[in-house]
Amino acid sequence: MFQKFLKTSQTRVELALDQWLQAATDDNAKLTEAMRYSAMNGGKRVRSLLAFASAEACGEPARDSLDAIACAIECIHAYSLIHDDLPAMDDDDLRRGKASCHIAYGEANAILAGDALQAEAFRILTAPELALASEIKVQLVQELALASGSQGMVLGQAVDLNAVSQTLSQSQLETMHRLKTGALIRAAVRMGAVATGANDTELAQLTQYAQCVGLAFQVKDDVLDVTADTSTLGKPQGADADMNKPTFVSLLGLKEAERYAQSLHRQALDVLAGFDYRADNLRHISGYIVNRAH
Amino acid sequence: MFQKFLKTSQTRVELALDQWLQAATDDNAKLTEAMRYSAMNGGKRVRSLLAFASAEACGEPARDSLDAIACAIECIHAYSLIHDDLPAMDDDDLRRGKASCHIAYGEANAILAGDALQAEAFRILTAPELALASEIKVQLVQELALASGSQGMVLGQAVDLNAVSQTLSQSQLETMHRLKTGALIRAAVRMGAVATGANDTELAQLTQYAQCVGLAFQVKDDVLDVTADTSTLGKPQGADADMNKPTFVSLLGLKEAERYAQSLHRQALDVLAGFDYRADNLRHISGYIVNRAH
Repeated sequence: MFQKFLKTSQTRVELALDQWLQAATDDNAKLTEAMRYSAMNGGKRVRSLLAFASAEACGEPARDSLDAIACAIECIHAYSLIHDDLPAMDDDDLRRGKASCHIAYGEANAILAGDALQAEAFRILTAPELALASEIKVQLVQELALASGSQGMVLGQAVDLNAVSQTLSQSQLETMHRLKTGALIRAAVRMGAVATGANDTELAQLTQYAQCVGLAFQVKDDVLDVTADTSTLGKPQGADADMNKPTFVSLLGLKEAERYAQSLHRQALDVLAGFDYRADNLRHISGYIVNRAH
Repeated sequence: MFQKFLKTSQTRVELALDQWLQAATDDNAKLTEAMRYSAMNGGKRVRSLLAFASAEACGEPARDSLDAIACAIECIHAYSLIHDDLPAMDDDDLRRGKASCHIAYGEANAILAGDALQAEAFRILTAPELALASEIKVQLVQELALASGSQGMVLGQAVDLNAVSQTLSQSQLETMHRLKTGALIRAAVRMGAVATGANDTELAQLTQYAQCVGLAFQVKDDVLDVTADTSTLGKPQGADADMNKPTFVSLLGLKEAERYAQSLHRQALDVLAGFDYRADNLRHISGYIVNRAH
């Protein structure tokens, strides 16, 4: 059942991204190629899964609109990875087992592809063909813009940059991740719910769920960075530890970090107590995140 | 009268930007400083002037909303300059007579400041405190996203990148500029009008006006690149010619390029024939653009 949800959702996002990024095509082949190369480079599509499952938990809206929302979120995620990999940032040559965007298309095109993908996200959310009320579209743009910008993801990246070779406390590390990866995960969960017209109580509970899951995701990432091998991981094993970046493993030790991820998973299930079976995919995603092998 | 409009408008944008970027402040001082450093680095604020004057021509909406629209456009413009100046792009150390963002704050912070300013633009346009109908906000986001992304400004920059050392025809050069600087100028004019609920005829005429003015702006820029000195220009004189970039001057010669700018100015006035005295500031801006000394 959950396996089918995973598969179907990932296919839906890929198809929809293919269509939305088709529309964005114009006479500069390299720019468009670089955008598609990064946005359609698979991955688990965790943010899309969360948006779909969250909508499901509150009473699903029109399928096309939901697909568009997932695409917008994936565009932001893809742009952030492109810019994160740049030589001036993390300087990563590899992304999901393939050459990073700037290795494949050059640095200038990578910067521009990232920039264009960000604009694309907001274009998609306000596209006339989206069958959502204008009030909802405005809320979605606001959620995504807040989560992406200087109060969310980009702020997290700036904090992360300055954290290299520093000793962070657990709470500082959590703040950094709450922004860097957590903000977009939180937005994905909330946007799925907003699209269905979820009420404030539902939205508040889902936000708590998203915070647990977002943190668990990062803790598990740090665990995998030391336990998985490069080919499973799609990036050099031990990359973060090598860069002398603070991680949950360096802070808590491997065992304790693994235990922490599991406890966040249990918390995520607890805050969903008020939801019926329709939140089952949200419950499964949380387990999927802490039990994945890459 | 026009001088007063210039002065007042520029002050309005600076004040509003100061406030909006205040709200974006959080615990990473460097990121916020870099954003403010670039966004509040004065300049002529041509895009804001156009949005204000265009709203005036159609029947001005609430002043605060208009200020917010101008800020959103300036955020996009500022982000594009930051990324344009990066070593992997134009590699410019100087911007409006000051160190470029990456010189002042480092490359990583400059990339992030640009990214955050783009998100900021869309946050501002959908802020709950903006007294505009949701339908209008959605339209504004759509206009700005289309103008900024892979069908507008970023596409123009990609075309420009690949044009170095190439011989372009006049029509190829115009296409490049129509995207690179023209798209945002067009969006500024249209967004001011959209905010007032302008009708389709007005919008179509203003779009034509914007296309003349946008092109005139670029032609005049190329002229100034060879005629003005570095201190007046705020960037190295002859910079574009040095990089072997095609310009209107290299294509048409100096005299003919100057004549072309004036003829575009006259066209801009012609398409405004159906507007009354309330479009006078739009008329003046067109003259201001082709007669400026820097």
